[in-house]
Amino acid sequence: MAGKKTWYFPDGELPPPGDGDPQGHESIIILNPNSEEARVEVALYWADKAPDRFNVDVEPERVRCLRTNVTTDMGGFELPREVQYGIRLTSDVGIVAQYGRLDVRQPNMAFYTTPGYHED
Amino acid sequence: MAGKKTWYFPDGELPPPGDGDPQGHESIIILNPNSEEARVEVALYWADKAPDRFNVDVEPERVRCLRTNVTTDMGGFELPREVQYGIRLTSDVGIVAQYGRLDVRQPNMAFYTTPGYHED
Amino acid sequence: MAGKKTWYFPDGELPPPGDGDPQGHESIIILNPNSEEARVEVALYWADKAPDRFNVDVEPERVRCLRTNVTTDMGGFELPREVQYGIRLTSDVGIVAQYGRLDVRQPNMAFYTTPGYHED
Amino acid sequence: MAGKKTWYFPDGELPPPGDGDPQGHESIIILNPNSEEARVEVALYWADKAPDRFNVDVEPERVRCLRTNVTTDMGGFELPREVQYGIRLTSDVGIVAQYGRLDVRQPNMAFYTTPGYHED
Repeated sequence: MAGKKTWYFPDGELPPPGDGDPQGHESIIILNPNSEEARVEVALYWADKAPDRFNVDVEPERVRCLRTNVTTDMGGFELPREVQYGIRLTSDVGIVAQYGRLDVRQPNMAFYTTPGYHED
Repeated sequence: MAGKKTWYFPDGELPPPGDGDPQGHESIIILNPNSEEARVEVALYWADKAPDRFNVDVEPERVRCLRTNVTTDMGGFELPREVQYGIRLTSDVGIVAQYGRLDVRQPNMAFYTTPGYHED
Repeated sequence: MAGKKTWYFPDGELPPPGDGDPQGHESIIILNPNSEEARVEVALYWADKAPDRFNVDVEPERVRCLRTNVTTDMGGFELPREVQYGIRLTSDVGIVAQYGRLDVRQPNMAFYTTPGYHED
Repeated sequence: MAGKKTWYFPDGELPPPGDGDPQGHESIIILNPNSEEARVEVALYWADKAPDRFNVDVEPERVRCLRTNVTTDMGGFELPREVQYGIRLTSDVGIVAQYGRLDVRQPNMAFYTTPGYHED
């Protein structure tokens, strides 16, 4: 099985959208290189309350981009803006995941990306 | 053998070139530290269709930069702009790979880079 | 146990705050996905003197963001600005850590982030 | 022994310095967390010629930042600007390494950093 089942991204924060195009946003990008659909539990960790959890699916041999401000990408969850949080992905088949953020507050683009920490 | 045979980059997207210099672009940089030529299969994963595949070679003890908008770097493949995709590299000898993007839409430079997720 | 006990970030440097909002800053973000509190020793490495050390705690199933210019986040330590340093985290339970920097000197935002190198 | 002995950075390129402050530059940051001095061989890989090699030392429990445009940091080697190259570090004791670049061509700051790929 290709990829790993567990991925962590410690530093999440949904930036303000701004007025321009493209807008400020955050993404969790999940690649499923395997031949079975992946069911992924997303856990959101906070500084001062218990984690929230929901599930997303990623089709076999497809990439899926979760925009964290789009509730249909986030299992109905409405993420607050400008609040520190962390992310864990737990999948039933191997996946590969990356985090990206675009901030346009100044108003130039500032990109921020990191691969995840992964384990079996 | 140095390096790894398989590399993944979940978050690919070819940005618009813009009018300035340097232009907006994406690169896949492959370092072959071994004494044999590397034959690398590049697979491109999409959100809504089956993967595309082509091959590139990297000479021994050399680095090669694939510009994703240059069809001769991409085995003749013409990559669409501003479309989400993922990348897998599969090599017959160990390599080390990195992804870079330069976006100039605002029109300042915004860089985006990540090491790959790798496995044997 | 999820996560790793030891994390390194070679390239730390506290940028000037600037006049705008958000201000230039550095963060060490620590996610504790386990059910026990994490006691973390932070060691700061310098180019020309012996390391400094202090401790921080991270509650179970919480994320904590250490702003490196806030002495109460840094065990009372006052970090000099614009000086090269490196970071090691050593925890008694598994954690996942990331480093982030925001530089606003020009005065646009420039982001800089990296996952840590980790070992048991 | 903490850290790893071998580190790779596929995507090096020395940017133009520009006219402002800070100037555009590249850095290889090496943290030696061990109690012995590290002797590090730096190999530079090119697209079209054989690698160049030189040595640097990093004191025990210290961090050292190599500015790639400073010949005394690079074993006397004068790096060409705006040329693609890759980097390998091979050390006799464990180290942790990171790559950073600052580009000021537009003329805002654009940061680019990556952890290294590492192996024993």
